[in-house]
Amino acid sequence: MYLSRSLFSMKTRLTSHSMTEVVVNQIRKASQKMSFPINQEKAKDIIDNVDNFLFDCDGVLWDGNGVIAGSLAVVLKLKQLGKKVFYVTNNSSSSRQDYVKKCNDYGFPAEKDDIVCTAYIAAQYLHSINFKDKVYLIGKEESIGHELDQVGIRYFGPGPDPLIGTGYNQWLKDIYLDAEVSCVLVGFDPHISFMKIMRAASYLKNPDCLYIATNEDGSLPAKDSNICIPGTGCMVLPVTVAAERDPIVMGKPSTNMFDVLKKIHNLDPSRCMMTGDRISTDITFAKTCGMRSLLVLSGISTINEICQPGQSPPKQANLQNQPDLYAQNLAEFGKYI
Amino acid sequence: MYLSRSLFSMKTRLTSHSMTEVVVNQIRKASQKMSFPINQEKAKDIIDNVDNFLFDCDGVLWDGNGVIAGSLAVVLKLKQLGKKVFYVTNNSSSSRQDYVKKCNDYGFPAEKDDIVCTAYIAAQYLHSINFKDKVYLIGKEESIGHELDQVGIRYFGPGPDPLIGTGYNQWLKDIYLDAEVSCVLVGFDPHISFMKIMRAASYLKNPDCLYIATNEDGSLPAKDSNICIPGTGCMVLPVTVAAERDPIVMGKPSTNMFDVLKKIHNLDPSRCMMTGDRISTDITFAKTCGMRSLLVLSGISTINEICQPGQSPPKQANLQNQPDLYAQNLAEFGKYI
Repeated sequence: MYLSRSLFSMKTRLTSHSMTEVVVNQIRKASQKMSFPINQEKAKDIIDNVDNFLFDCDGVLWDGNGVIAGSLAVVLKLKQLGKKVFYVTNNSSSSRQDYVKKCNDYGFPAEKDDIVCTAYIAAQYLHSINFKDKVYLIGKEESIGHELDQVGIRYFGPGPDPLIGTGYNQWLKDIYLDAEVSCVLVGFDPHISFMKIMRAASYLKNPDCLYIATNEDGSLPAKDSNICIPGTGCMVLPVTVAAERDPIVMGKPSTNMFDVLKKIHNLDPSRCMMTGDRISTDITFAKTCGMRSLLVLSGISTINEICQPGQSPPKQANLQNQPDLYAQNLAEFGKYI
Repeated sequence: MYLSRSLFSMKTRLTSHSMTEVVVNQIRKASQKMSFPINQEKAKDIIDNVDNFLFDCDGVLWDGNGVIAGSLAVVLKLKQLGKKVFYVTNNSSSSRQDYVKKCNDYGFPAEKDDIVCTAYIAAQYLHSINFKDKVYLIGKEESIGHELDQVGIRYFGPGPDPLIGTGYNQWLKDIYLDAEVSCVLVGFDPHISFMKIMRAASYLKNPDCLYIATNEDGSLPAKDSNICIPGTGCMVLPVTVAAERDPIVMGKPSTNMFDVLKKIHNLDPSRCMMTGDRISTDITFAKTCGMRSLLVLSGISTINEICQPGQSPPKQANLQNQPDLYAQNLAEFGKYI
């Protein structure tokens, strides 16, 4: 298996040789970085030196229950201070137009160019390489489909694709592959099915067929619920493991989204701050792009992943990947501005 | 994301520090092992020193088109020489009883105790820990369900579970979780769906809920076809990534299957040989259990993964995980016995 094999061989290399371990531990220690709680002084530094505020949405500005208390006031205050505000989301269920409406419905000021979502970025990516064939799409018609339509790229795949055939031999015989397909694009799709995974992985047997994923988040934020809602990673990973190929990922932590934003708005990363709720995507993204970073604990990541000053790092913490600052929620940052 | 994060942090550690790289490369070189083509001398050594022959099935004895030419004659010859033959398969679509029938239909001699399949091992595992609650099962009624019935363990889940609800809020509200469930068991299930992944990952929010996977193979063997048929890994990985938990894996390369076989038949691993078509499962399994190993190239793994004597290792080869011997197919081994 593709992922498991890589993971296994790396684990083996790292754990079975004490000499390597010593070196790795030294490197870990040396590159360990603290994360600081937001306070008056830190907030002043941000307001003085940051012009562009990039916000993840789910788990930061809103969640399944609506606007997260206090977040709207922070965004409005930043706008009042003359700051630029951008909405940067891995969510591939919506087009930019949908996101403008969603932001506005909640009271957040937004125009189309303030939104960077993975459905849009995927379409832009294919457009930029002058893609002329067909896309096999695991994803929603109204989001990714809509963005592909905007740049004139042909696709099929959205909607239910229920199991047909009684097993192995019939699948081998009856699956039709469209010879014009030269890209498999996977985003959030609650109609994910065995047939879709089989079609996608079969197209990807051709090494010239592109493999693009909008993002790989494992679950959607659902704080305080006993339900875990699967994220796009649940649609992407089955294809990855069946096809034994890694996708080009559009969403955070890949830098594609910042590259597009930077180009349109001529941004200087050192004067940008990314605020997010997930270390593995938002904070990694901020660091890779050279931005400041603020983690809010109103979504996925928890205090158990934070290396706090004067405390030994918790087991779950990724020592190389700590946010510059953290706050309980956006409202806590708001208290100081 | 669970897997990606681990993979990412390991990659970072391995690639961004030249000192670590040097050490790792030295270790790789030192532990590199050659794999030898089968020949008269090697075959004689096997016949003289091996009493127990363990065979993977799909891709070794048969494939989607029926018995692989020459493999039946080899098994019959081994039986004639007084050797014990066992069938060790990660396939979780069949019970032991099904496998006896399948073997016999193809002409392979087999009784129930000669078969080790993951549906059986999963049921045995739960039985051995005196499991009394309910299992939420992503898998087939007639295979895993049947084996659970044999040991009196209650379960539900098999069959279609199509998408209901229009989105996020309805899912959070309408998903019913059975309080008696304290194990999620995932095997091959062509009815895999968003709802099943959501239910499984939600049960796994409870850290006391066991998480068991029959196996994690990414695809089923389908040599020379342009179709890629998803394997059990495509059902397991979405649950793993949504729940951010790693399963206890029953199948190869985990040693569970050999442990059961060893116990029933009192086997000495040094007098056992495992023959398989997949390095990442079969060969790793052989090595972990202390058996000899023969890779046949009639299934998943290819010659590009083999370090041949006198040649520089191919890029794709896992240098730490080479079979002792390799052959085009079982028939090639048969020529020498």
